Amino acid sequence: MLFRQLFDAETSTYTYLLADETTREAALIDPVLEQVERDSKLLEELGLKLVLVLETHVHADHVTGAGMLRERTGATVAASPRGAPCVNRKVAHGDVLRLGRLEVKVLETPGHTDDSLSYLCEGRLFTGDTLLIRATGRTDFQNGDAGQLYDSITGRLFTLPDDTVVYPGHDYAGHALSTIGEEKRHNPRLAGRTREDFVTFMKSRQLPPPKKLDVAVPANRACGVIAPQPQA
Amino acid sequence: MLFRQLFDAETSTYTYLLADETTREAALIDPVLEQVERDSKLLEELGLKLVLVLETHVHADHVTGAGMLRERTGATVAASPRGAPCVNRKVAHGDVLRLGRLEVKVLETPGHTDDSLSYLCEGRLFTGDTLLIRATGRTDFQNGDAGQLYDSITGRLFTLPDDTVVYPGHDYAGHALSTIGEEKRHNPRLAGRTREDFVTFMKSRQLPPPKKLDVAVPANRACGVIAPQPQA
Repeated sequence: MLFRQLFDAETSTYTYLLADETTREAALIDPVLEQVERDSKLLEELGLKLVLVLETHVHADHVTGAGMLRERTGATVAASPRGAPCVNRKVAHGDVLRLGRLEVKVLETPGHTDDSLSYLCEGRLFTGDTLLIRATGRTDFQNGDAGQLYDSITGRLFTLPDDTVVYPGHDYAGHALSTIGEEKRHNPRLAGRTREDFVTFMKSRQLPPPKKLDVAVPANRACGVIAPQPQA
Repeated sequence: MLFRQLFDAETSTYTYLLADETTREAALIDPVLEQVERDSKLLEELGLKLVLVLETHVHADHVTGAGMLRERTGATVAASPRGAPCVNRKVAHGDVLRLGRLEVKVLETPGHTDDSLSYLCEGRLFTGDTLLIRATGRTDFQNGDAGQLYDSITGRLFTLPDDTVVYPGHDYAGHALSTIGEEKRHNPRLAGRTREDFVTFMKSRQLPPPKKLDVAVPANRACGVIAPQPQA
C-alpha cells in the first residue's frame, strides 16, 4: 500500500492519499480545493490513477477539491447519503470500497455532523472530524450532536484494536497521527469521562462559528464546484 | 520502532520522534523550542524516556529545543563538531548511535551549511535542510556551498536504495515525506541537472535572509538556552 499524508496549512486540514502499489489505483480522502494542483502533480509523479475521492463529511472550514478532481479524472466521489447531493456513490455503515486489492471499510460515525463517516484501510483509521488527536470535532452546527458523537467514538472507534492508527481530518498542534489505544488513555474529553460529562462539556463550549461556514457548506454540497458545470 | 512526525506551523519545521518500543528509549531529531511542552507531553504519554537529541545542523530559521530538553531529561545532544559548541556528543560520518536496539547512522551532508548531517534509521532518512521534498536547502549563508550540497545529495543520499523514505527538516507545501527514488526522478533542481547547472541555479537565487537568522544562529550555538545556566 502506498500512503501519503498531506497538509493544508491555511485550514490545518489533512488529506490522505491511498493507493494499490500494483494496480496504481488511488483514492484521496478529504482533498482541499486550493491543493488540487499539488495533489494532481503528486498523483502524476507517482504514476497513480485517481479512481476514488472519499469525503468524511460536508466540511464547514474548507472547500473540497472532490468536484474538480472528478472533472479531471473521472474519479467516483463517495460520501454519506446525508451529506452532499453532488456525490456519485452514497455509502453506508459496513460498506467496503475496493481500491485495487485494497479494501476501505465505511464506518458511520455521526455526531460532529449527521453525515460524518470514518474510513478504515489496513489498520489505518481516517476519522475526519469525529475523533481528533487528544480532542474531538465540535457539535454545535450542521446537526451536530454531542451524545451521538460520544456513542460513535466509544462504540464504533474505541472498539477497534488499540494499535489502529488514527489519522484525523485536522490537527492544530503539529501532531500527524495517534492510535486508538492512545486516544482511549489520553484524550482529555473521553478518558474517564461519562457520556453525560462529555455532553455537558461540549455544551459548555462557546465557540465562534467556523470562519468559512457560510461559504464552505454550500460549496461542499456541490462538491466544491460552485458554478453549474454543463458537462458534469 | 515507534515513530512520529511533528510539525511546527510557524516555521514549517518538522521534528521527529524515534523510539525503541521495548526499551522505551527515545530520540528527537530537530526539536523546536516553542514545542518543548508538546513534545515532553507526548514522550510522557507514550511512556518514553528521552535519551538523545539529534541536530541536523545549526538552524537559522527557528530556535532548537535541544538545550531545554537536555536540562529536563539529561538526554545527550548530538551534532557535528562544526556545529554548536554546546553539544555533548560530536559525531562524524559513519558513526552509529544506539537507541535501545535501534541504530541511527550519521551521514555528513554539508552544503546547506558546513555542519549539516543526515541521519538514517531503519530505512528512514532524516535529511534536515540538505534535501527537501522537490527542493533543497539554500546555500547562501553559514558557509553554505552549492557544489558541496550537490555532491552530498548525489554522492551520499542518492546512492541509498530508492525506497529509502526521505523525511525533511521543513516542508512548505504540505508534503510529509518522499523517497530517494522520487527525488532522483522528480526533484526539479537535481533531476537531469549537472553539478554546474545546480551551482548556477543556486547562485542565481536572490533570497532575503531567513527571518530569524540573527536570533536563531547564536541561540542555536547555545542549544537554545541563551541565558547562562548555572547547573548546566
